[in-house]
Amino acid sequence: MYRVDLNCDLGESFGAWKMGMDEAVIPLISSANVACGFHASDPMVMAKTVALAKQSGVAIGAHPGYPDLQGFGRRNMAIPPKEAKAMVQYQVGALQAFCKANGVQMQHVKPHGAMYNMAGKDEALALAICEGIAEVDDKLILMGLSGSCMLSAAQQVGLQSAREVFADRAYNEDGSLVARGKPGAMIEDEDLAVERVIRMIQNGTVTAITGKEIPIRADSVCVHGDGPKALAFVQKIRTALTGEGISIVNLREVIGER
Amino acid sequence: MYRVDLNCDLGESFGAWKMGMDEAVIPLISSANVACGFHASDPMVMAKTVALAKQSGVAIGAHPGYPDLQGFGRRNMAIPPKEAKAMVQYQVGALQAFCKANGVQMQHVKPHGAMYNMAGKDEALALAICEGIAEVDDKLILMGLSGSCMLSAAQQVGLQSAREVFADRAYNEDGSLVARGKPGAMIEDEDLAVERVIRMIQNGTVTAITGKEIPIRADSVCVHGDGPKALAFVQKIRTALTGEGISIVNLREVIGER
Amino acid sequence: MYRVDLNCDLGESFGAWKMGMDEAVIPLISSANVACGFHASDPMVMAKTVALAKQSGVAIGAHPGYPDLQGFGRRNMAIPPKEAKAMVQYQVGALQAFCKANGVQMQHVKPHGAMYNMAGKDEALALAICEGIAEVDDKLILMGLSGSCMLSAAQQVGLQSAREVFADRAYNEDGSLVARGKPGAMIEDEDLAVERVIRMIQNGTVTAITGKEIPIRADSVCVHGDGPKALAFVQKIRTALTGEGISIVNLREVIGER
Amino acid sequence: MYRVDLNCDLGESFGAWKMGMDEAVIPLISSANVACGFHASDPMVMAKTVALAKQSGVAIGAHPGYPDLQGFGRRNMAIPPKEAKAMVQYQVGALQAFCKANGVQMQHVKPHGAMYNMAGKDEALALAICEGIAEVDDKLILMGLSGSCMLSAAQQVGLQSAREVFADRAYNEDGSLVARGKPGAMIEDEDLAVERVIRMIQNGTVTAITGKEIPIRADSVCVHGDGPKALAFVQKIRTALTGEGISIVNLREVIGER
Repeated sequence: MYRVDLNCDLGESFGAWKMGMDEAVIPLISSANVACGFHASDPMVMAKTVALAKQSGVAIGAHPGYPDLQGFGRRNMAIPPKEAKAMVQYQVGALQAFCKANGVQMQHVKPHGAMYNMAGKDEALALAICEGIAEVDDKLILMGLSGSCMLSAAQQVGLQSAREVFADRAYNEDGSLVARGKPGAMIEDEDLAVERVIRMIQNGTVTAITGKEIPIRADSVCVHGDGPKALAFVQKIRTALTGEGISIVNLREVIGER
Repeated sequence: MYRVDLNCDLGESFGAWKMGMDEAVIPLISSANVACGFHASDPMVMAKTVALAKQSGVAIGAHPGYPDLQGFGRRNMAIPPKEAKAMVQYQVGALQAFCKANGVQMQHVKPHGAMYNMAGKDEALALAICEGIAEVDDKLILMGLSGSCMLSAAQQVGLQSAREVFADRAYNEDGSLVARGKPGAMIEDEDLAVERVIRMIQNGTVTAITGKEIPIRADSVCVHGDGPKALAFVQKIRTALTGEGISIVNLREVIGER
Repeated sequence: MYRVDLNCDLGESFGAWKMGMDEAVIPLISSANVACGFHASDPMVMAKTVALAKQSGVAIGAHPGYPDLQGFGRRNMAIPPKEAKAMVQYQVGALQAFCKANGVQMQHVKPHGAMYNMAGKDEALALAICEGIAEVDDKLILMGLSGSCMLSAAQQVGLQSAREVFADRAYNEDGSLVARGKPGAMIEDEDLAVERVIRMIQNGTVTAITGKEIPIRADSVCVHGDGPKALAFVQKIRTALTGEGISIVNLREVIGER
Repeated sequence: MYRVDLNCDLGESFGAWKMGMDEAVIPLISSANVACGFHASDPMVMAKTVALAKQSGVAIGAHPGYPDLQGFGRRNMAIPPKEAKAMVQYQVGALQAFCKANGVQMQHVKPHGAMYNMAGKDEALALAICEGIAEVDDKLILMGLSGSCMLSAAQQVGLQSAREVFADRAYNEDGSLVARGKPGAMIEDEDLAVERVIRMIQNGTVTAITGKEIPIRADSVCVHGDGPKALAFVQKIRTALTGEGISIVNLREVIGER
């Protein structure tokens, strides 16, 4: 039987500014990536988000980003690996405090935005981030782009890892994401998006933007909770996966299957 | 035999800005209060400071403050207890990550600046902070102004606590510090300052600014490492205490004496 | 004929976080208070907001606040008058750059949140803020709570001032606002709120929470654009004021009437 | 007769953190680049720095940077030109407020750190920055790396510009700076550094790191005030330049010579 995790970025409000429909999406997912105050969130939001996730039995992960609230951590920043490592450790620790206060174990770490993208292509950066995580807690699972160097870096330092795929994004032949903005980068057709995910899980393949069939492994599917349309899609993909007999379980359970 | 801890605020550099003579003062103290990024410090500074303290065998504590880099956490801010609690948890967690990465156990938490002062007088705030600490790690020791409501709050939530005294500050009859700026607030005479500390430790008393002898308990003496003069004073007080047969040991060992 | 200004706080989005319905409310008001990056907003938001206001012919004012994004500038902070002065100058200058780039003249300055409230009661703070504004541009109008010491401070430094009133707030007998949270602090009945404003403008009086009729002068009425209900109220008060023959004009035109 | 400007980055303290020996270096230079709060400085520091510069008759320029206090604006950030433009306008406006409060005219704008370097090579970024400056005040002089695209961008938007050279840096054959870290990047020999500057001014040439003589124009020489050694070098270069009959005057006077 196939198993897959559904993950969503959460806790992205900040002070008086609200973002996302966390209460609505949490019951639909299996793993929550919780922002840690560098690109979004603040201590109050983190406390609330961890409590919400726990209440729904959703596994919790840290979602560390670059220190850039104004740019939401989406702007590439030339941060040396050693400093990125310390930034990740800081944020993982901060979230762990709320996990401890709520009596839950943190499950994973998924870097956010520009850090995720840069570390997916930069081996030294990926390695530093993974070392940082392992030093703080070697039971944590690193979640990274399927096929990227984040996963090999995790392996190198002895961290378990989870391969993330995207339902709404096109892939290049090398398994990297087609850059946003390029024609065809987004999979707009929801039915097609669902089909692609199912095939990734069952067949371990996806059709690249060139038309070529490429291998891809899916431990977790990234979904969004930032609006009614996104929520409806999460519901749709849940139904479709379940209909195919694919269990939606948290990462720990998916990883255990290997 | 008497025992006392010498604590110092450390790791107060930020990015390109250097503050304090951490390398020089660390070997002279027994407990380091490490800034956690809200009023000073950043992840790189924290990583370095924890490593330095560990190297000298100095016990490590979190020094959480208000989110006010520009004001160095010294400006009173009207932050509700619940939010102060979350801020403390965040910062304690962040520092714990570096402790784990260095294989050391965090010893204590001492709020910084305006948070220290406000929580010393505001029971609800003190209680929220202590609850926050206890929820994250109930083995942590709360360090607060001797005689202040921080200590009763710690007791209320089941945290061990340490009573901090100041060598260079005058006391009111109620055991509170004479506000900076008031005449006589600072004990300028170093010999007198040393004598006062010795008496606090040995006799459990200090002469208030009014001339009245008041009771005071000293588990830890706050010293500074922000300049050559401050360093010389730390050396002087060390020599004097040792000459009196007072052992300088970390908080855990002092607290064990109770 | 009576004249009054309708002012609204605008440009309160920040980075990826959106706040307020600026496009919808701007055509309904006569003066826009534009956040300046300390408690809300960022350079891109400021550029956009100034352009929007200009397009609708709405007068532009700076809305400086305390440096507290996380607290939205609503938390009291113990900032010395001299520093508050520099903070106001900085923010006024920053907004002036966007006014110049758009070829418009800045009309007024209205401090935000905790700064507004604290300066309304603290003469030294009010004076420092007004001096700061006057030093940068003595043609600017200071907008402050009607009857508060902000207005006398403005007069003292030679700044023109505008007296702001609130439709949805109760007043104490001394003309101060009843603190939020106290029973009766908010005027929930919209018709009553409109009636009160009309009477403030036409009669120069308002019924205090004690029932006593007190004098109050209204140059500008604060309205909100943070939701459909707020927008509907702005439309309602516009219609009512116009129906009473009260012209809605910007501050410069109201002040010129004196 | 030859004329040249000596410029120095100033006002780089932040809150409780002090940086640079501003009081000592200001009397030795002719133009001050004042940090504007994004990579360093705060409103109090800006107020003080502008007052100091005015007192010594030193011309004042804005030194805008990327919003990255922790990285001191030295980290490349992927900020779109339109946003960089708004950031520059914001910072220029903020400093103008302090210039107005002190009754001085702002002379120039010199981007800082990563913004300076990136805009020196990226035409779209350079153009956006120059447009931003021109929109706020078209009398301002843009100071940029001699030979870089910042200067052509300034010309394109009708801004006067000043060509900056470095005494302590080696040049590539194309006039760009040899990257720090590469062998020979720094001119360590102070006498050689002084000679090179004199030749840049008198001959309009410099010896590139390859040994080839290349053309270079020098309107302003960048000096540093961050320590006693730097200060001694400023004194030395002043003496040498004056001995050669080269007048040290502010940018406005140098530019007028063209």
